[in-house]
Amino acid sequence: MDRNLVINFTPTGMIPTKEMTPHVPVVVPEIVDQVLEASELGITMVHLHARDAKTGVPTYKKEIYGQIIEGIRKYNPELVICVSLSGRNFSEFEKRSEPLFLEDSLKPDMGSLTLSSLNFNATASTNSPEMIQKLAKEMLDKGIVPELEAFDIGMINYAKYLAKKGLIKPPYYFNLILGNIACAQANLLNAGIMINDLPEQSYWSLAGIGNAQLKMNSIGIAMDGGVRVGIEDNIWYDTKRTKLASNKDLIQRIHTLAQANERKIMPPSELRQHLQLGTKGIYGRTLNELT
Amino acid sequence: MDRNLVINFTPTGMIPTKEMTPHVPVVVPEIVDQVLEASELGITMVHLHARDAKTGVPTYKKEIYGQIIEGIRKYNPELVICVSLSGRNFSEFEKRSEPLFLEDSLKPDMGSLTLSSLNFNATASTNSPEMIQKLAKEMLDKGIVPELEAFDIGMINYAKYLAKKGLIKPPYYFNLILGNIACAQANLLNAGIMINDLPEQSYWSLAGIGNAQLKMNSIGIAMDGGVRVGIEDNIWYDTKRTKLASNKDLIQRIHTLAQANERKIMPPSELRQHLQLGTKGIYGRTLNELT
Repeated sequence: MDRNLVINFTPTGMIPTKEMTPHVPVVVPEIVDQVLEASELGITMVHLHARDAKTGVPTYKKEIYGQIIEGIRKYNPELVICVSLSGRNFSEFEKRSEPLFLEDSLKPDMGSLTLSSLNFNATASTNSPEMIQKLAKEMLDKGIVPELEAFDIGMINYAKYLAKKGLIKPPYYFNLILGNIACAQANLLNAGIMINDLPEQSYWSLAGIGNAQLKMNSIGIAMDGGVRVGIEDNIWYDTKRTKLASNKDLIQRIHTLAQANERKIMPPSELRQHLQLGTKGIYGRTLNELT
Repeated sequence: MDRNLVINFTPTGMIPTKEMTPHVPVVVPEIVDQVLEASELGITMVHLHARDAKTGVPTYKKEIYGQIIEGIRKYNPELVICVSLSGRNFSEFEKRSEPLFLEDSLKPDMGSLTLSSLNFNATASTNSPEMIQKLAKEMLDKGIVPELEAFDIGMINYAKYLAKKGLIKPPYYFNLILGNIACAQANLLNAGIMINDLPEQSYWSLAGIGNAQLKMNSIGIAMDGGVRVGIEDNIWYDTKRTKLASNKDLIQRIHTLAQANERKIMPPSELRQHLQLGTKGIYGRTLNELT
């Protein structure tokens, strides 16, 4: 299939700090600036994390998410916007789901949905079956499309289970995130088995942690998939870790690779069409398209 | 390699109740009886879970584990005994590790070590990196060999990480447990990729949840691996679920399959030799063999 390249831009995440890299955007205007700069270069969607302005610590507050979304949509109302519903720092449903309650012009198109509990390097990330199903239901009710995050084979099976229960609806969008220490590794066999296992009508982007970002992005581009790229997963430009990356550097390299592989960047309007997201001014998946 | 068949017998688990099946052993004398009956038929090792006598609810208490171990070793001092350190119902290190503190003739040879957080059908099972490393260290210090439990690809990578940190020592013993809803599925590709990924000097047994137990046991027998079998993972004898299994039924079927596949059951004494476990009367891995 000749498919245009989805670039899912992840500028911030929950881990990188200014001490680790001066290039990570933390406060609202920085995040908005870097997203708009990236969207001028050419990206399809953005995966947002918000931070508290004073402490730089991740926050679930919809006010902060709302300010970022407002800032982006003022200049680029079409970019597909996904908010993080991560349980890494907040465990209660009310907190994790808060960004889903933004409305009208601030309503996010998508929300992240991690498909199981897992371990990161130093911490457990608990996403109980009940929590996953509640978040999926909330998004379904609101017409917000889940960004399905799979870190290992079994999480794809859980997406199929959610589909069977009617809690997620096709077409689906998956991030396949490889190279986490206790999850699928960033190699061709692990990536291949996950891609092969996706349900029909799935769009997917490949992501790699740290040094694996470049590898996984490259094979995603080569093999008709998409990429998830940005400082959230990887702060270095080179694998020898001599140069810190800016988000702009990382996106420009994706463009170089895409061009050499005869791939065109998918414009946000096209992803809106594929995922049945609303067009300019109407955000999320419109509910009547699901019935 | 012509390797004898490890039968890892799992009579009880944490889930099956007398209401689900009258065949599940719950109180100490029932568990001891069924283990001794199985060891007369021919098994290599037993994976024990203890229950509270009054409520039937899982317990971490070393007194109960001690009674079971005493009952087994009175008649069969050679059977390799593994205690559960599951965090499914108890989260504190002191509780999870309690069965490791049994001593002398009650000291377990092995303790279970789940290699990441994961989701079961209805619940999250949290095993933080810190908890896993503390349990591994405790076992290493005591000369108790970890029964490494992997439910998905990434957990094998985490075992390699523990090995690199010196927290586990070869030769290793793995249970590969397939068919959990949010983990690797019980098919040849998933099993193949996990087996292929094991570190050198690994012994492994294949397990399947529910109906998948027979499939996974059969391919383990066919492909020179071991099996984990018993009511813990599967209460039915047939895949149509018309007949509840007894533990004896399940083990006898393994023997039938083993015989047809020209596999001999590995006697406990041979596994003791392979895993450098002590011989009769000395339990666990003797510490000086590790240096």
